[in-house]
Amino acid sequence: MREINASISVDKRLWREDIAASRAHAAMLAKQGIVSSDDSKAIDEGLLQIAAEFEAGQLNEDPALEDIHMHVEHRLGELIGDAAGRLHTARSRNDQVATDFKLFVRRAIDEAMLGIDALESALIARAEQHVADVMPGFTHLQSGQPVTLGHHLMAYREMLVRDRSRFSDARKRMNESPLGAAALAGTGFPIDRDETAAALGFDRPTANSLDSVSDRDFVVDYLHAAAQCSVHLSRLAEEIVLWASQPFGFIRLPDAWSTGSSIMPNKRNPDAAELVRGHSARIIGDLVTLLLLLKGLPLAYAKDLQDDKAPLFDAHDLLELSLAAMAGMISDLEFVPDRMRAAAAAGHATATDLADWLVGEAQVPFREAHHIAGRAVAAAEAAGKALDELGLEKLKAIDTRIDKGVLPHLSVDASVASRRSAGGTAPERVREAIAAARAQIADREGK
Amino acid sequence: MREINASISVDKRLWREDIAASRAHAAMLAKQGIVSSDDSKAIDEGLLQIAAEFEAGQLNEDPALEDIHMHVEHRLGELIGDAAGRLHTARSRNDQVATDFKLFVRRAIDEAMLGIDALESALIARAEQHVADVMPGFTHLQSGQPVTLGHHLMAYREMLVRDRSRFSDARKRMNESPLGAAALAGTGFPIDRDETAAALGFDRPTANSLDSVSDRDFVVDYLHAAAQCSVHLSRLAEEIVLWASQPFGFIRLPDAWSTGSSIMPNKRNPDAAELVRGHSARIIGDLVTLLLLLKGLPLAYAKDLQDDKAPLFDAHDLLELSLAAMAGMISDLEFVPDRMRAAAAAGHATATDLADWLVGEAQVPFREAHHIAGRAVAAAEAAGKALDELGLEKLKAIDTRIDKGVLPHLSVDASVASRRSAGGTAPERVREAIAAARAQIADREGK
Amino acid sequence: MREINASISVDKRLWREDIAASRAHAAMLAKQGIVSSDDSKAIDEGLLQIAAEFEAGQLNEDPALEDIHMHVEHRLGELIGDAAGRLHTARSRNDQVATDFKLFVRRAIDEAMLGIDALESALIARAEQHVADVMPGFTHLQSGQPVTLGHHLMAYREMLVRDRSRFSDARKRMNESPLGAAALAGTGFPIDRDETAAALGFDRPTANSLDSVSDRDFVVDYLHAAAQCSVHLSRLAEEIVLWASQPFGFIRLPDAWSTGSSIMPNKRNPDAAELVRGHSARIIGDLVTLLLLLKGLPLAYAKDLQDDKAPLFDAHDLLELSLAAMAGMISDLEFVPDRMRAAAAAGHATATDLADWLVGEAQVPFREAHHIAGRAVAAAEAAGKALDELGLEKLKAIDTRIDKGVLPHLSVDASVASRRSAGGTAPERVREAIAAARAQIADREGK
Amino acid sequence: MREINASISVDKRLWREDIAASRAHAAMLAKQGIVSSDDSKAIDEGLLQIAAEFEAGQLNEDPALEDIHMHVEHRLGELIGDAAGRLHTARSRNDQVATDFKLFVRRAIDEAMLGIDALESALIARAEQHVADVMPGFTHLQSGQPVTLGHHLMAYREMLVRDRSRFSDARKRMNESPLGAAALAGTGFPIDRDETAAALGFDRPTANSLDSVSDRDFVVDYLHAAAQCSVHLSRLAEEIVLWASQPFGFIRLPDAWSTGSSIMPNKRNPDAAELVRGHSARIIGDLVTLLLLLKGLPLAYAKDLQDDKAPLFDAHDLLELSLAAMAGMISDLEFVPDRMRAAAAAGHATATDLADWLVGEAQVPFREAHHIAGRAVAAAEAAGKALDELGLEKLKAIDTRIDKGVLPHLSVDASVASRRSAGGTAPERVREAIAAARAQIADREGK
Repeated sequence: MREINASISVDKRLWREDIAASRAHAAMLAKQGIVSSDDSKAIDEGLLQIAAEFEAGQLNEDPALEDIHMHVEHRLGELIGDAAGRLHTARSRNDQVATDFKLFVRRAIDEAMLGIDALESALIARAEQHVADVMPGFTHLQSGQPVTLGHHLMAYREMLVRDRSRFSDARKRMNESPLGAAALAGTGFPIDRDETAAALGFDRPTANSLDSVSDRDFVVDYLHAAAQCSVHLSRLAEEIVLWASQPFGFIRLPDAWSTGSSIMPNKRNPDAAELVRGHSARIIGDLVTLLLLLKGLPLAYAKDLQDDKAPLFDAHDLLELSLAAMAGMISDLEFVPDRMRAAAAAGHATATDLADWLVGEAQVPFREAHHIAGRAVAAAEAAGKALDELGLEKLKAIDTRIDKGVLPHLSVDASVASRRSAGGTAPERVREAIAAARAQIADREGK
Repeated sequence: MREINASISVDKRLWREDIAASRAHAAMLAKQGIVSSDDSKAIDEGLLQIAAEFEAGQLNEDPALEDIHMHVEHRLGELIGDAAGRLHTARSRNDQVATDFKLFVRRAIDEAMLGIDALESALIARAEQHVADVMPGFTHLQSGQPVTLGHHLMAYREMLVRDRSRFSDARKRMNESPLGAAALAGTGFPIDRDETAAALGFDRPTANSLDSVSDRDFVVDYLHAAAQCSVHLSRLAEEIVLWASQPFGFIRLPDAWSTGSSIMPNKRNPDAAELVRGHSARIIGDLVTLLLLLKGLPLAYAKDLQDDKAPLFDAHDLLELSLAAMAGMISDLEFVPDRMRAAAAAGHATATDLADWLVGEAQVPFREAHHIAGRAVAAAEAAGKALDELGLEKLKAIDTRIDKGVLPHLSVDASVASRRSAGGTAPERVREAIAAARAQIADREGK
Repeated sequence: MREINASISVDKRLWREDIAASRAHAAMLAKQGIVSSDDSKAIDEGLLQIAAEFEAGQLNEDPALEDIHMHVEHRLGELIGDAAGRLHTARSRNDQVATDFKLFVRRAIDEAMLGIDALESALIARAEQHVADVMPGFTHLQSGQPVTLGHHLMAYREMLVRDRSRFSDARKRMNESPLGAAALAGTGFPIDRDETAAALGFDRPTANSLDSVSDRDFVVDYLHAAAQCSVHLSRLAEEIVLWASQPFGFIRLPDAWSTGSSIMPNKRNPDAAELVRGHSARIIGDLVTLLLLLKGLPLAYAKDLQDDKAPLFDAHDLLELSLAAMAGMISDLEFVPDRMRAAAAAGHATATDLADWLVGEAQVPFREAHHIAGRAVAAAEAAGKALDELGLEKLKAIDTRIDKGVLPHLSVDASVASRRSAGGTAPERVREAIAAARAQIADREGK
Repeated sequence: MREINASISVDKRLWREDIAASRAHAAMLAKQGIVSSDDSKAIDEGLLQIAAEFEAGQLNEDPALEDIHMHVEHRLGELIGDAAGRLHTARSRNDQVATDFKLFVRRAIDEAMLGIDALESALIARAEQHVADVMPGFTHLQSGQPVTLGHHLMAYREMLVRDRSRFSDARKRMNESPLGAAALAGTGFPIDRDETAAALGFDRPTANSLDSVSDRDFVVDYLHAAAQCSVHLSRLAEEIVLWASQPFGFIRLPDAWSTGSSIMPNKRNPDAAELVRGHSARIIGDLVTLLLLLKGLPLAYAKDLQDDKAPLFDAHDLLELSLAAMAGMISDLEFVPDRMRAAAAAGHATATDLADWLVGEAQVPFREAHHIAGRAVAAAEAAGKALDELGLEKLKAIDTRIDKGVLPHLSVDASVASRRSAGGTAPERVREAIAAARAQIADREGK
C-alpha cells in the first residue's frame, strides 16, 4: 500500500511551488488576524530555510511522508515547532495541491512559449537566408509546383504562431487561484482569497470551491497545446529525416545534431529529429492518459487525480527537449540548394504555369488548358527534357495558341516569382512575411 | 481502388460550404476581371440551383465522381456548360477543401457554444431552485463536508465557462481563409483574397499558402474542445447514474430521459446519461485519430488528410446529442433533497466545523483540534448518533475547552452557512455566483 | 431522447447474426420442451422469411423500434402472432446482443485472416520475383547495408504471420457462447446452453452469466489485432509513398492504385497508400474508444456498451479496405531495380563487409577494423568513387593487411550473398524463407 | 543533443538482460571458432564481474556513454582490455537492443501472470466464503435481479482467465531470438543462431533479419494485454469505491488498503482502488504511445524506437503495483452481507421470477407475464412492501392464474437458487465454477 500510495518520487518537483503557495497563505493569515504575526514570521523563515535546503539538494525522500506537502510540513515542524501547525488553518491538501500544480503548469506554459519563440527566430533567420532558393513543393510526396525554401520554412512559423496562441489562451483560462477552496466547500475563516491570488500572480480566485479541487482542465489544456506543438515539430522532423536521406540529399546534418558511425564517416543519422518524432508519440500518450483519468470521475477530489502529475512532467520535459533540439537543428543544418533546385526542375513542375498562361493570355478554358499542358509534359518526358528546354516549336506543335510569350514562364524561378497572390511563394511575398513576423515579434516583446 | 478512394459518402455533408465558397470565389474572379461578369452570373445562378436541388434531397452519390467538389463541378457543367470550367481558375482542390471544411468546423463551434449555453442555463435554473438544499460533498466518494446542491450544480457551470472559452479561442485562431492558396504555392492570377475572406466571414486570409493546405489544427482544436467538454458531461452523467441508483436515491429520472422495463415499472434506467459517457469515449477516440493522422506528415497536402472528416463529423454529432440530452435531463430530473440531506447528516460531516471552532474560538492548535474532533466523531459513531445529537456533556467530556458556543455549528445547515469564503458553499455565496453568472450571460448576449 | 437512444442505424448490420442466434435459441427451446414444436416451427419459418426480406433490402428503420432486435421481434409478431413472444423465453436483450455481436466479430476475424492471407501471397510472389535484386537497407532512413528486395518484402510477411496469429488467438479466446446468460443471472428454465453454443459454432458456453453480458474483451481483442495489423500496413504504405517519390524512384505505381493529374500525366499520386496510413489512425482511434468505454464501468451491463458497435464496424470496414488495397498495390506495382541498386551502391554500403573481412581474415580486432573501413570510405568519398572502385593500391595504402582477397567482398552483390546467417538477406536464405512460407501456407490450408 | 540522445537513465534497467545476452553470444562465438576460447572466457568473467558490480549498485551513469550497452562495453574494456572488442563480432547494437528488450518483456509477462494468479486465488477464496450471500445484480447501476457475491467475484475471475491467456499468447508469439540479425541484414560470420536462442530460452531464432530489428510487436502485445487487464482491475476498483461509499456500505475497507483522516476516524478513503483506476489510464496511454511511435515508420531501425522503453517500464511497474494492491484489497476487505441482502430485497428484484413462474407453470405468454409482474411490482411499491411480503390474496387479485405455488419463488434466496442454468448464479453452480477453477489451476501448476 505504501508503495502504491506514495507520490513523493514524482511530486517532489513541486517543492518550489509548494513553498511559494504556503508563504502567500501564511502572510494572508497574519494580515487577516487568523494567525499571529509572530507565527507567520516563524513560518516564513522556516519555509525559506527549507527552500534553501531543497535547493542544496537536501530533500530526503521518505515514503512514510507520502508527498511533497507532508515533507515540507514535517520539516517545518522540526524547524519551528507548534507554529508549523497553524499554517494549515483554512486550507486543505486539496486546494494546496491544486494551487501548487497550477503554479507549475503556468511556469511550464511560459517555458514552452520561450522555446517556441527561439525556434520561431531560427526559422525566420533561415527563411531569410533562403528566401529565393527554389525547391520542389510536394503534395502526396510527389513534386508538384516549385516553391522557395524560405516559404516552406515560414509555413512552420505559422504553425508555431498558432501553438503560441494556444499556450497563451491556456494560460489566461487557467490563471485563477484555487487556494482557499479548502477541502471542497470553502472555509468559515475570514480569509482573503484575492490577497493570495495576487501574491501568487493569479488574475483572481476561482469561483467555485468544488470545481477548484476537481478541476484539471489546466493540465489537459497544457497537454493539448504540447501535443499539437509536438505534432508540428514531428512534421518538421519527418522532413529533416527525409531531406537527410541520400536519395533526397537536400540537407547536411550538423555533427552536433546527428550521430555518426565509426565505420561510415560519411553517414549522419538524424537521431535528434527521430527522437523529436518519438517524443511526440509520448506527449500525445500523456494527453490521452489525462482524458482517460478524468472521464467519468464524480466530484470532487478522487485519488485518481494523483496520476495527473507523471504524464504532465513527462510531456513537459519532452517538449522542452524537442523545442530546444529543433531550434538547434534548424539553426545549424546546412541546406543544399543545388539539390533542391535540381529536384524542382526535374519534375516538370511548371506545367501549371503553362496552363495558367493559356488561360490568362490565350483565353483557353481552364480544363482544355490543363490538357494541353499535359500533352506538353508528355512530350518533355518523352524527349527526356525539362519543360523549359523543350523549345517553342515543339510547344506550338502541341497547340498553335502557344507563342514565345510563354517561354519566360516555364523556368522554376519564373514560376515562383509569379505566385504573387497574398501568402504565395514569390520571394517578394516571403520577404513581406518575414518582415511582418519580425514586426509581430518586436510588438510582442515591446509589451 | 474506387472504394478506398471515394469520399462522397462522408464529405457530402459539406455541400452547403462548398457552394458558399464557390460563389464567393466566382464573385471575386469577376470583380478582378479574371472571368467575365456573364460567366460569373451563370456560375452563381447554377450554384444556387444546385443548392436548391441538394436541399430537396437530389444529390445522387456517384462514386466515380469521388467527392462533393466533383459532384458540384459536374452538375454545374451540366447546367451551364463551359463557363463552369472557369470557376476553377486560380484555385485548386486543396484550398477548396480546406475552405469548405473550415466553414463547417466554424459552424460546428457556433453550434457547440449554443449547446453549452443551453445547458448552462439549465444548470443555473436548477441551482437557484436548490441553492440552500444540503447534500454530502464527496471526496473519494466518501461523504466529507456538507455542501449545497446549488453549489454542486454551479461547479459544472464553471466547467462549461471554460468549455465555451475553449471553443471561442479555437474560433478566433482558425478564422482565416485558405481560399486562394491554390494547390500549395499561391497563384499568378490577380486574385483578391481579402475579398473572398470577407465574403465568407473570415477575419483575414491565411498568411502562408503551404501551411494553408496542410493545416488541420482547426480540426484538432475543435476535437480537443469537444473532448474536454464531453469529459465534463461524462462526469455529470456519472453522478446522474450514481444518484439514480437505489442506494443513493438522490434523484428520480424523468420518463423522457430514461427507459423503463415492462416488468419493473419502478425502475428507470439512466440510458441517456450512460450514452453521454459512452459518447465521450468516442469523441476522445476521434481526437486521438486526428493527432495520429497528422503526426509525422511532411508538407504539404497528403491524402491521409481525407480521413479527417469522418472523425470530425462523428464528434460533432455526438457532442450535439450529448449537450442536448444533458440540458434536457438537468431541466427535467427530480431531485430528492430529503435523501441528500439525510446522507449528508449521516456521515458526521460537520467534524471539520467542530475542529475549526476549536481553532478559531478556543485557540487550539490545528492538529490538536483535529484529534479532538476525531474523538468526538468516534463517540458519536459508538453512540449511533449524529455529531449534533451527541450533546454538550459528552463533548465536554472529550475536551473541556468545548462549550455551548459550539452547538450552533454542528448542524449541516450551520456548516454550509458558515463556508462564506469567496467561492464557498454558503447559500449567500451561491446566490452571488448565480447572479454573477446571469450578469455574464446578459453581458454576452448584449454584444 | 429517441435520437440519442436509437441504435438501429448502426446495429442493423447485425441482422444476420440476430436471426441466426434466434433460430438456434428457438430450436433449443423446442428440444427442451420449453416451447412447443409448433411454436418453434412457426418462429423458424418467420425468421427465415424476415431474413429473406432483409436480404432483399426490406428493412425499414423505425427509430421507435430502437434496435435491430426490436425490429426483428416486431416483424416476427406481425408474421406469426403470439408465438413470436415465446422466442424470448429464457433469454434477454443482454445475452442476445452479446451473442449477435460475438458472431459478427468472429466473422470479422475470419475475414481479416483471409485478407491477410491474400496480402501474404502477394508479398511472397513479388519477393520471389526480386529475390536477388539489391536495394539499400536503411536505418534512420540512411543507406546502411545492401539487402535484397525479396528479403525486404519478406520482412512484411513476418509481420503478417504475427497479425494472423493475433487474430487466431483472439478467435479462440472469444469463441464461447453467452446465449443463456439471460439478463445477468442465468435462468431457471431448463435450457441447454451447450446445444445453442454448438449450433452457432461456439466451442462452449461462457462460464459466468455476469461476465457474459459485461464482457467486451472480444471487441478490444479484434481492435487490437486490427490496430497492430494496420500499423504494419501503414509502415508498408509509408515505404510505397517514399519509393514512389521522384528522389527515390524505386517504384512506378500502377494506374489502378494511384490518381493522376490531367496536367501532369507523369505524376502518380499514391492515394491508396496514403489512405492506408490514414485508416490506421482511425483504427487505432477506435481501439482507444473501446478501452475508454470500458474503463471503470461496474458490472454488469451498462448502456455505454451500446457505443461499442460504431467503432468496431468502422475498424472492420477500414481494415478490409486497407488489406485489399495493399494486396492490389503490391501485386500491381512495378519495381525499378536499377534505381534501387544504384542507390545501394552509392552509399559505400559495403564498408561493413570490408571491416568483417579484416576481422575474419586478417584477425584485426573489431573496433580497429571499423576504423580502417572508415578511412577507406573517407578515401572513396574524397575520390568520388564507390568502395569497390577504389582499387587495391589505395586500400593497401590505408592498411597493409588488406590484400586482393578482399576485392570480391566489396560489391553490393557479394555483400548480400555473404549474409548467409539464418534469417539473413543472402538470396539463398530468402529462397529458403519463401519455400518455408509456402510450406506453412500449404500446411495451413491442408487443415 | 547529448541530453535528448542519452537513454541511460531509462535503459539501465536492461543491464541484467544485456549481460545475459552478451554471455550467450560470447559462448556461441567461441563454440563456432569465431573468437578464441581464451577471449570468450575473459569476456564471460568480465561480464560476471560487471553483473556483480551493478547488483551492488555500482552503475555510474555517464551520459557520454549514451546507453546501457555502451556502459557495459566500456566497463568490459576497462576490465579485460582488447578482448572486450571481440564480443561485438557478428552482432550490432540493433539486434542487441532488440534481444535485451525482448528478454525484459518476456520477464514482465511472466511477472504479470504471477500477479494475475495471485489475484485469481484471492477472488476464488472470497467467492467461496460468500458463495450463497445475496447481493443486487446491477444493470445500468439499477438493481435488477439478485445474484450471489460469490458469482459476482467469479465474474472477475473469468476476466483474469482471459488476461492470462492474452499474456500467454503474447509470450508464445514473441519468444523468438533476434540475436544474430546484426544491423539489419544478417552477417557473414558462421554464427549459430539456434545456439544463442536456446541459451536465452527462446523457442527459435527470428526468421527475417530486417523484421528482427524493426519489430516492436512484442512491446505492443504486452501493453495491450496490460491495458486490458488494467481495465478489468479498474472495473473492480470502481466497484470497491462504490461499495465503500456510505450510501452503498457493502464493504468495509481494511486499514492497510485505505487512508483515514485524523478528523474523521470512521472514514476510510479507497485510495488504493482509486490509484488502480488511475494507473489504468496511464497504462492505456502507454499503449497509445507505442502505436503512435510505430505507425508509418519505414524499415528498418529508426531512433524513434528508443522511446519504446519508458512507456513499457511505466506500464510494467503500474501493472505490478495494481495487481498486488488488488490482490491485497480483495483478500483483506470485509464484506457486509446484510447490507447487500437488504439492497437486493429492496428493489423488487424477484419480479422476473414471478414472470418466469407464470410462463413456466401457468402457460402465460411471455409478454403478458411481464405485464402481470409489472402490476405486482406496482402494487408492492404502493404498499411499501417487498414482493414476497405482498401476500397471495393481493397477487391473485392482480391475476387469477397466480396460486400459492408461486410463493416459494419470490424471495431473493429462492431467486438465486433457481438460476441453475450453466454459468448461472445459483450457489450450486458457483460452487461448481469454483471447483472447476481450482482444477484448472492445479492442472496449470502441475505442468
